[in-house]
Amino acid sequence: MTLPRVMLEPIVRTALLEDLGRAGDLTTQATVSSDRQATLAIVARDHGVVSGTDCAVLAWTLLDPDVEVRIDLPDGSRVGPGSRIGTVRGSARSLLTGERVALNFLGHLSGVASATSGLVQAVSGSTTRICDTRKTTPGLRSLEKDAVRAGGGHNHRFGLDDAILIKDNHIAYAGGITAAVRAAREAVGHLVKIEVEVDTLEQLDELLDCDADAVLLDNMTPAQLAEAVRRVAGRLITEASGRVTQETVAALAASGVDLISAGWLTHSAPVLDVGLDAVD
Amino acid sequence: MTLPRVMLEPIVRTALLEDLGRAGDLTTQATVSSDRQATLAIVARDHGVVSGTDCAVLAWTLLDPDVEVRIDLPDGSRVGPGSRIGTVRGSARSLLTGERVALNFLGHLSGVASATSGLVQAVSGSTTRICDTRKTTPGLRSLEKDAVRAGGGHNHRFGLDDAILIKDNHIAYAGGITAAVRAAREAVGHLVKIEVEVDTLEQLDELLDCDADAVLLDNMTPAQLAEAVRRVAGRLITEASGRVTQETVAALAASGVDLISAGWLTHSAPVLDVGLDAVD
Amino acid sequence: MTLPRVMLEPIVRTALLEDLGRAGDLTTQATVSSDRQATLAIVARDHGVVSGTDCAVLAWTLLDPDVEVRIDLPDGSRVGPGSRIGTVRGSARSLLTGERVALNFLGHLSGVASATSGLVQAVSGSTTRICDTRKTTPGLRSLEKDAVRAGGGHNHRFGLDDAILIKDNHIAYAGGITAAVRAAREAVGHLVKIEVEVDTLEQLDELLDCDADAVLLDNMTPAQLAEAVRRVAGRLITEASGRVTQETVAALAASGVDLISAGWLTHSAPVLDVGLDAVD
Amino acid sequence: MTLPRVMLEPIVRTALLEDLGRAGDLTTQATVSSDRQATLAIVARDHGVVSGTDCAVLAWTLLDPDVEVRIDLPDGSRVGPGSRIGTVRGSARSLLTGERVALNFLGHLSGVASATSGLVQAVSGSTTRICDTRKTTPGLRSLEKDAVRAGGGHNHRFGLDDAILIKDNHIAYAGGITAAVRAAREAVGHLVKIEVEVDTLEQLDELLDCDADAVLLDNMTPAQLAEAVRRVAGRLITEASGRVTQETVAALAASGVDLISAGWLTHSAPVLDVGLDAVD
Amino acid sequence: MTLPRVMLEPIVRTALLEDLGRAGDLTTQATVSSDRQATLAIVARDHGVVSGTDCAVLAWTLLDPDVEVRIDLPDGSRVGPGSRIGTVRGSARSLLTGERVALNFLGHLSGVASATSGLVQAVSGSTTRICDTRKTTPGLRSLEKDAVRAGGGHNHRFGLDDAILIKDNHIAYAGGITAAVRAAREAVGHLVKIEVEVDTLEQLDELLDCDADAVLLDNMTPAQLAEAVRRVAGRLITEASGRVTQETVAALAASGVDLISAGWLTHSAPVLDVGLDAVD
Amino acid sequence: MTLPRVMLEPIVRTALLEDLGRAGDLTTQATVSSDRQATLAIVARDHGVVSGTDCAVLAWTLLDPDVEVRIDLPDGSRVGPGSRIGTVRGSARSLLTGERVALNFLGHLSGVASATSGLVQAVSGSTTRICDTRKTTPGLRSLEKDAVRAGGGHNHRFGLDDAILIKDNHIAYAGGITAAVRAAREAVGHLVKIEVEVDTLEQLDELLDCDADAVLLDNMTPAQLAEAVRRVAGRLITEASGRVTQETVAALAASGVDLISAGWLTHSAPVLDVGLDAVD
Repeated sequence: MTLPRVMLEPIVRTALLEDLGRAGDLTTQATVSSDRQATLAIVARDHGVVSGTDCAVLAWTLLDPDVEVRIDLPDGSRVGPGSRIGTVRGSARSLLTGERVALNFLGHLSGVASATSGLVQAVSGSTTRICDTRKTTPGLRSLEKDAVRAGGGHNHRFGLDDAILIKDNHIAYAGGITAAVRAAREAVGHLVKIEVEVDTLEQLDELLDCDADAVLLDNMTPAQLAEAVRRVAGRLITEASGRVTQETVAALAASGVDLISAGWLTHSAPVLDVGLDAVD
Repeated sequence: MTLPRVMLEPIVRTALLEDLGRAGDLTTQATVSSDRQATLAIVARDHGVVSGTDCAVLAWTLLDPDVEVRIDLPDGSRVGPGSRIGTVRGSARSLLTGERVALNFLGHLSGVASATSGLVQAVSGSTTRICDTRKTTPGLRSLEKDAVRAGGGHNHRFGLDDAILIKDNHIAYAGGITAAVRAAREAVGHLVKIEVEVDTLEQLDELLDCDADAVLLDNMTPAQLAEAVRRVAGRLITEASGRVTQETVAALAASGVDLISAGWLTHSAPVLDVGLDAVD
Repeated sequence: MTLPRVMLEPIVRTALLEDLGRAGDLTTQATVSSDRQATLAIVARDHGVVSGTDCAVLAWTLLDPDVEVRIDLPDGSRVGPGSRIGTVRGSARSLLTGERVALNFLGHLSGVASATSGLVQAVSGSTTRICDTRKTTPGLRSLEKDAVRAGGGHNHRFGLDDAILIKDNHIAYAGGITAAVRAAREAVGHLVKIEVEVDTLEQLDELLDCDADAVLLDNMTPAQLAEAVRRVAGRLITEASGRVTQETVAALAASGVDLISAGWLTHSAPVLDVGLDAVD
Repeated sequence: MTLPRVMLEPIVRTALLEDLGRAGDLTTQATVSSDRQATLAIVARDHGVVSGTDCAVLAWTLLDPDVEVRIDLPDGSRVGPGSRIGTVRGSARSLLTGERVALNFLGHLSGVASATSGLVQAVSGSTTRICDTRKTTPGLRSLEKDAVRAGGGHNHRFGLDDAILIKDNHIAYAGGITAAVRAAREAVGHLVKIEVEVDTLEQLDELLDCDADAVLLDNMTPAQLAEAVRRVAGRLITEASGRVTQETVAALAASGVDLISAGWLTHSAPVLDVGLDAVD
Repeated sequence: MTLPRVMLEPIVRTALLEDLGRAGDLTTQATVSSDRQATLAIVARDHGVVSGTDCAVLAWTLLDPDVEVRIDLPDGSRVGPGSRIGTVRGSARSLLTGERVALNFLGHLSGVASATSGLVQAVSGSTTRICDTRKTTPGLRSLEKDAVRAGGGHNHRFGLDDAILIKDNHIAYAGGITAAVRAAREAVGHLVKIEVEVDTLEQLDELLDCDADAVLLDNMTPAQLAEAVRRVAGRLITEASGRVTQETVAALAASGVDLISAGWLTHSAPVLDVGLDAVD
Repeated sequence: MTLPRVMLEPIVRTALLEDLGRAGDLTTQATVSSDRQATLAIVARDHGVVSGTDCAVLAWTLLDPDVEVRIDLPDGSRVGPGSRIGTVRGSARSLLTGERVALNFLGHLSGVASATSGLVQAVSGSTTRICDTRKTTPGLRSLEKDAVRAGGGHNHRFGLDDAILIKDNHIAYAGGITAAVRAAREAVGHLVKIEVEVDTLEQLDELLDCDADAVLLDNMTPAQLAEAVRRVAGRLITEASGRVTQETVAALAASGVDLISAGWLTHSAPVLDVGLDAVD
């Protein structure tokens, strides 16, 4: 991952405490001897792209600093059934107690990376980038957006405060696109970009006379997108969103848009199945 | 929801701060007047079951105590495209600033509830209950398990500390099923139940002579499950897991198992699409 | 202790910051040279059972990672006046600054373990187990229940959420024991046990026809308890509570109840006196 | 209590979450209707002095802002069996869910106040004050010291940073009493007092030539204390500690010492039994 | 302020607890009756611009929800000696206990706003904007940047993650300006701007051929800046930094740069003196 | 610094997360290779006194435990332009990512130490001590007061709870100086000192008959202070405050007051300029 440990640690601690509850791991305490050592392989059970290895490492090492975790396939690696992502070695109790938390991070984040990678591959012949949205799981935005990058995607804004995105309601309340963009440009710092969501080509035409940086072309057909790209003629970064699926994404990209964003990469991607296997 | 506000508040605060970042909602500050009032409807865009309304309410009211949220379709309600879940009224700025966080909770948790409800309906002719696992999203376990209940499902254990679940590794390290169950029974308090995972009918037979409360029949076919249920003959609670899908679940339930558990209810359920519509 | 460090650390940090305040240890800073090294023995001053050593270790090592703490008598050890529980070595400043926090944990938790051990010994000829309650010190429940185990006792439920305990008020509001147990059984997951508090043998008779797992026989005499045990005849786990003292506990246990619970183990046990002695 | 809500709230929130765990109050959810209202009296079951009412109020109102708590006998009030400390009214679910946390605070803190009051009364004919120590329960120092005040006692220092207390080890490392006091006076601000612990009258004589504010006369007999008070002749505040019990305290006070401190007020005082009774 | 309460509350709580310590406000408790009411005016003692009123309001209302604070001169208002910023009314104890925390926020943030306003006025005849840096006080960045806006300034980036700022070390490690900009553009999302710091006109010339958005002209003289602005010719946003004082800023602005940034606005601005006066 | 790591760590973590935001250091990630090593010198750019080195060390080591920081000029050292305070060595990415946070602590706290040292030197011929106030930056009181000590100053009280300071409003509400002091003495513990603020010599005369420890002579001229010191004649610690500047402080000290306090040491001291230089 590209995030320093100081950012990951609070989230992994919360996840560990959530699973340990008030009494810790009753089963392992009762059934596994405290001096039992073990080595387990972290193994993918399906095809996909890895993300979340730093969280998995932390899950075990925050629990027990003597556990050793070796990652063989770092974030961004492509895996298939049986690929050994890494190996964890140490007290058998610690390995089993940390297992579910480590795998919950790995599975979820690798799921996001894998879904992203699917779209990225589908548009690989084009110049279009795949990007995420703010439709993320509460508390996990930084991690999920890191997973999108691991999958070859790019990040849209991280929150309400690092870029301007003017949507239909803002336009309505501001009194039109032109007024909204002007107000935004006046208000924000020089390093803040402005993107505006439009639903029609007429709105796009109005926007082209404003001082914006990007346009979000919402729910348009490939043909509409192509016309929009033609009208923009490089003056704005163009982003398409809406109805983006593994099947439709290539056609959308063929329009020449710069970016295609999809909320489901972060809110609905199924996990990548990852498990632990005993190592002889 | 069935969880008191004191449990929800830290999670919702974290989600709000994650979205607000360091500068707050730049777009809304710049484009919407501070005295603008608005009323928006919370509307489902698809079929499913609602969960997470209390989080949505908190997302807006922690941001601005003057926002009024009325929930018409509480957690557990069945909805379809256009169903109005509720209405939010107040400062337009506050409504727009809180929108994404509120919808991220509603969408994710309603997705879990809807997936659960799908399985529950598929086994509705049987006595089998649908239940969740510990394969939850880090930080959201309480909420996701609440969503499972909203969808008509039941909860498996909440963590490592509220029940014993002896799996293959524990059995191996403890020296067999009998030894593991005996050690567990000796260790735990009188209100802690013991469940044991078995892969074969031979293991089941050994377990039937132990002092356990439940058996997890892992990855068995409907026929194997039926035989297992026959052998158990009511002496243990029976739970089936593995390869549970919307398509296979009815056949699994026909075996007569008491419970069917599915990790994907919490780790891979797609969101329920929920949005905000302007109210005239 | 049986709890991983990730669970103990937040509590020990809070205790250290509570003692250090805003200016740290004024006395030690002023009077002890920063390069002074020291070795101190952790010594019991009275008879009892040790608990809390992991917290004591953390108190010193969170303050100064270079302090070395060796524990000779781990949690659960029986001690008397002069028993050396362990040794702490390092910067004299760090040893003195951490002393009170370390001893406050050790004294309090060893007090709980010692009180528990007293009751456990008093019923040692019987099959009755001693257990705790939820009458714990705010913020210290996990630690105090760990101390009960160190003293040879067993744990009752850890909170409102890991087992059902139906008391008089619940019965009243639910419309009777039968209704309450039925509602509880319907609501909870398959790994949650149900215990019901009864004050009379008539209530017990009603309960015996319900689907409960355990009965809490409240404030009964040894004779009443014996009759209750006779009526239950192994169909429920039996727990006695109320008026449990070091003097009465053997007589209560003679009734044959499975468990005797006592709130004062955690809320009123006097500390075990533990101090530090200079080591030559 | 004399502490503002902003100081109490984090501790009470922690205690509530500790009891609610991950699933909340299973019993009450299952057995009590959500629209059931109730009124319960907070009643003392024994003789003592009340403390902790603000925490009890917060336990219920943080859980449910609609609960109304009326306190009739505020902190510092003397109670006996049956005294009604207050009344709590609202949703029956909320009242039962918050009951244990509220009573755990009330019982523990009233226990501290009651123990303090016992010593205060025993020395009531003298000019001696009763005070506490830093031997408090981890995490509860502010509350326990507030309870000492409620019981008529006075507070010793609150931590390592608000006063200097030079003990035997400091003296040894500093090279004697005179050197230690001189170093301390040089180091600290003008509003920090200096107290020195002495074990003998010879040490006291040395201290009388130093610039200290108070002396802690450790483990002395009443006769030794009287001689010490005579020698001090008002030049230092005199504090006696060690072997202070309800039986011995009057004799110690007869020596004329200004203060008698006792660690057991905060670390070993038994709870005051407080319960809830239904109100017709 | 433009920041929602959910962002301010944790900071104000920390400041209150920092001042209250473990025993609360000893002086006020001892000397002011609990039923004493008071009204105090919040009054400026010097010339400047107000910022931090929301924090001041929270300081009192988190302490005591019954305190009423009326702000007459909101953030951004220009004040002079005697200007009444607002009025606070309620329990005299609460008013005095919260006074210092409220004034520490008001004084510090109004100091930042006032310093900013000074520079803004000095360049008022030009098109140059005044902006801040990341040289802020640890923990207060959001508040200090809000104060800069209150003073008429603009915000530079809020952290390491919301824009790219390539400095000398980055250039050195990346192998030159061109390589650094290319790597940055490739890495970041479409809403992230890229600014590059240059020390010489030669570096500027190289940068003009890269795909950057802004240039930071470091430590240049007005003449050098003017030449730089001429060469840029509107292709980049231009920012001057270094040696910016109240005296030099107009000359720097005369160069035609878009922005002048000054770290001392946030790290070295003296407070605006604000106090409380009794109201008859 | 004299504060243990457990006190500094939460503040430094907050500052790091404030700067890292949600995506970490975009610039360094994009432009600096992960295997690049570097060594940088921490260098003063101006005259002053160092403080905050422990925070700087933590800023880098919390980010990356493999970074090595060597401090050559510890807190309290006098520096000038070019003085090398220390050296930091490790991953170039980690060094650059932690730079601003480390320097923000060093600059701010060294600024406080330097300002203090300036006053201390100005009164060096006298017996007067320089001390701070509670006018500190929210969240940084412990650190700023440590910096005052590094600069040769002394600490006034740390909060509302470690000493009594009776000001004009308290006197008014208590019914006069005599009543206020009597109430305070009665209320507080034996290790709490009492200081009273007076504006006139008449008030001072009244105070001299009370049981106070110190007097705060507010806003008096050198002549008034001298007369006050004469009247006090050693019976109280004397503190002067108000209009204390580098220019006036010597004249104030000539009055013979024990202490001179200045709020601007902590609220308005400009930073000491500290930077990083590449080491060959």
